[in-house]
Amino acid sequence: VNIGLLGLGLIGGSLGYDLVARDHYVWGTSRRLETCRQAVAQGAACVAHPDWQAIPGSDRAEVVVLCGPMDTVLPTLQAIAPQLSPDTVVTDVASVKGVICEAAAGLHPRFVGGHPMAGNSGQGLAAAVPDLFRDRPWVLTPLAETDRAAVSLLRELWGSLGARVREMTPTDHDRAVARISHGPVFVSASALVPPTAEAIALASSGFFDTTRVGGGNPQLGRSMAQYNREAVLATLQENAARLQWAIAAIEQERWDDLEAWLQEAAHRRQTYFPT
Amino acid sequence: VNIGLLGLGLIGGSLGYDLVARDHYVWGTSRRLETCRQAVAQGAACVAHPDWQAIPGSDRAEVVVLCGPMDTVLPTLQAIAPQLSPDTVVTDVASVKGVICEAAAGLHPRFVGGHPMAGNSGQGLAAAVPDLFRDRPWVLTPLAETDRAAVSLLRELWGSLGARVREMTPTDHDRAVARISHGPVFVSASALVPPTAEAIALASSGFFDTTRVGGGNPQLGRSMAQYNREAVLATLQENAARLQWAIAAIEQERWDDLEAWLQEAAHRRQTYFPT
Repeated sequence: VNIGLLGLGLIGGSLGYDLVARDHYVWGTSRRLETCRQAVAQGAACVAHPDWQAIPGSDRAEVVVLCGPMDTVLPTLQAIAPQLSPDTVVTDVASVKGVICEAAAGLHPRFVGGHPMAGNSGQGLAAAVPDLFRDRPWVLTPLAETDRAAVSLLRELWGSLGARVREMTPTDHDRAVARISHGPVFVSASALVPPTAEAIALASSGFFDTTRVGGGNPQLGRSMAQYNREAVLATLQENAARLQWAIAAIEQERWDDLEAWLQEAAHRRQTYFPT
Repeated sequence: VNIGLLGLGLIGGSLGYDLVARDHYVWGTSRRLETCRQAVAQGAACVAHPDWQAIPGSDRAEVVVLCGPMDTVLPTLQAIAPQLSPDTVVTDVASVKGVICEAAAGLHPRFVGGHPMAGNSGQGLAAAVPDLFRDRPWVLTPLAETDRAAVSLLRELWGSLGARVREMTPTDHDRAVARISHGPVFVSASALVPPTAEAIALASSGFFDTTRVGGGNPQLGRSMAQYNREAVLATLQENAARLQWAIAAIEQERWDDLEAWLQEAAHRRQTYFPT
């Protein structure tokens, strides 16, 4: 398959490694020429150049993956759409789908929204690794009118990398990630109270884990709230109500109620993560 | 040193392994005879019996460690104090110190409050392991009138296990653990919204980490709030205010403010965990 990767960061680079290893014709673009050179040298692309139209065969791409940050997906698609063949399947990897999928469908007939639930704590091509997507969920969010052949091609392609591909509506996807990914960023950040000498001395693994996603990339957190605003707000209001409930129970010394609430939380966690 | 461990669970058992390995005379007690037998068979005690006074040499104990749950510390001390030599140093391992230390000083002249910041996800003797305390903080919370020789003995003993021993007032300790341990349990539990099929399918490492301490032992969480009520409430009110701030920023679409808030959170986390 002739595949173009627009963006050679953590996701684009990792995709490149896996796709090159499976003998696809993988071309890539990055604004920085040096990143393009590195990607080719490291085997994350067969060929790469800042100007995608200068790359041999890019006009016959069967799949183009928009791998930039979520706020670049629609502008990038708008910029490249006039030059794309209407047969080319275009997909993205952003963690919000509602605001992207409807608009993207109007820009290109064969767009299919996508979201691989994979990553690591790094950023950029340096953080890219082979097999990042193996055994991880990869959501596709076709609309009712989306071409099923385009969906099948992506199911096969991402499935061949070991990803567990599943389909959801953009709305169901966005609500789910608000609950288990976007919302928790802000809950986690709310645990990051000002450091005191004693608190720093005693901070250990529990605090490390609780605050991990809240101490992550601020631009990414902002985009999650900005582009998934309604679902994130709904989740955070639920989180805030839960926290207020616990505060009231402690204030009123309703210890049995508090313990039952924690028991219910432990039970829910086991539903999310059966061991 | 002649050392008694009252309680042979995760902490008592782990202490036992380390102290036996350093050739101390370690005796232990557990309500269950079977636990006593296992502790001796596995090398977590030289001798163990449910009735501590039946153990040879227990009347000449130089150190007694109260290793039971925090709600048992004072009742246990009250029960054993009449039989203890006034020379015996008594300490505990509970994660709250304020409600314990003042009262304990009235029950036994050589009591020194203690809190090893170590553990794992298990419970009981089966979860006990050697070297649990190595490179972990171990807080001692002597009062102004506490015998310094007793403090020195414990500093040396816990230091010999590799723990990083430090002293704090009970109040400073309780405020610090409310911020980085007790409070985060409830913040973390507030992220555990009801599971939906899509959310379960997409839950991954970020949600796993954020919710870990909130999905832990409900009785322990209850005790943290109950025995460290004032400091936990102060922290949770701060957490709730932070979450409300984020919600308002998202509602009002103040994206630059929200990003700056996340940036500050990331900076704080680096202060807690410089890598």
